[in-house]
Amino acid sequence: MVSWFSFRARRARPANPRPRASSRPLVVSRVELGDFTPDLDVYLGQAAYLQLALFESLGRASGIAPSTRTKTLTGRVATSTLERHRGLVAEIERAGGDAPEAMQPHRAVIDDFQRRTGGGDWYETILASYVAAGLLNDVFSRLAAGLSDADRERVVRVLEAGAADDDAAIVSELSLAIKADPKLASRLALWGRRLVGDTLLVARAAISASHESADDERLEPVFTELIAAHTRRMDALGLTA
Amino acid sequence: MVSWFSFRARRARPANPRPRASSRPLVVSRVELGDFTPDLDVYLGQAAYLQLALFESLGRASGIAPSTRTKTLTGRVATSTLERHRGLVAEIERAGGDAPEAMQPHRAVIDDFQRRTGGGDWYETILASYVAAGLLNDVFSRLAAGLSDADRERVVRVLEAGAADDDAAIVSELSLAIKADPKLASRLALWGRRLVGDTLLVARAAISASHESADDERLEPVFTELIAAHTRRMDALGLTA
Repeated sequence: MVSWFSFRARRARPANPRPRASSRPLVVSRVELGDFTPDLDVYLGQAAYLQLALFESLGRASGIAPSTRTKTLTGRVATSTLERHRGLVAEIERAGGDAPEAMQPHRAVIDDFQRRTGGGDWYETILASYVAAGLLNDVFSRLAAGLSDADRERVVRVLEAGAADDDAAIVSELSLAIKADPKLASRLALWGRRLVGDTLLVARAAISASHESADDERLEPVFTELIAAHTRRMDALGLTA
Repeated sequence: MVSWFSFRARRARPANPRPRASSRPLVVSRVELGDFTPDLDVYLGQAAYLQLALFESLGRASGIAPSTRTKTLTGRVATSTLERHRGLVAEIERAGGDAPEAMQPHRAVIDDFQRRTGGGDWYETILASYVAAGLLNDVFSRLAAGLSDADRERVVRVLEAGAADDDAAIVSELSLAIKADPKLASRLALWGRRLVGDTLLVARAAISASHESADDERLEPVFTELIAAHTRRMDALGLTA
């Protein structure tokens, strides 16, 4: 199983020791997800189903929120999540597709992801939402670079709506709790490490579904950037990634 | 405990047999909820928290949806529910209030309602959403009649947004399932009767919180109308209320 640790280990190993032939295409070390044109149906179905799964987790989080304030915050994040879902469903329909049909093939992988990242209490569940939504919205925004200009513009607008404000609100609430309880800090740091492993697996599946030629070596720089962004998200909470 | 059956029994009894004194105010038999001015904070806190509770139930429903189509429908209804919640939170903030604080006092009653009306499968949970949201949005729309013109207009717009389309989509999906399975029809008819009893209790609490002078006798015509609307909702499914 590919884990966060193996990604990390790979990132830490010395640069390719073999001399690089000048004919070797630069794309190997500088792959951009936008170099590939994702199948629009597959891309949208996957992205739309993911938002639906994230909404479900937030519904559960709301039910176990420790206060009305955290419950309200959960409702706020769930609203943006569902708006992304609805926006992506509208894109599927605009392309002449049927949303449930487009989402169906992605159900098994994403449901499994959701089960493994449910979390034991509100703090773990909301951290999962922050970490997974952050990383996967990054992935889908990058994949959108391969779509037509008009499609990309609309999809990226849908994916980014509300995300920065929601992240700031989650960071503010979690930081308060972490400051008040050092045990929570270490528990959430551990949980964040487990989450990023599971999330990267879903990211890998999302990328593979969009371009068949993807292999781990070519995608390594992309994963390195995704992990760097994840590290910044954990840093914002004062937690070690 | 006040149940649907006691409301029904009351509706069925003969009209007041005592001769009515001409000085007796007409409001006794024709009370309109708009005759009372609800405390805006109490009204909005209660309405906002209710939508949050309905969203949670829909999150659970999404997790147990029997197909991607029913899951998509659940996401759609949850979106409107959360939009109503966000719209009501915006009204609380516009009035200078703090949303979690305004919602807090209503948590116990509504959480209890939510627990009792969770449902055993997707069909029961989505019927609960249809029945409870339908009846309670009716109640809050009527109570809004006592607000200032500007407040009322905004609040009613928030409460009604998307409701008719969502109801039609739920009716269409449930009708298909009911036609295919007569056992489901009788199970849902029974479940609907239990739901309406629990929902009327919450409606009663919502009305009481808004005007202290409410008593069961004066409110009877209001409940009669609420039950009539409930009966129409169950009729739309081909179920006996």
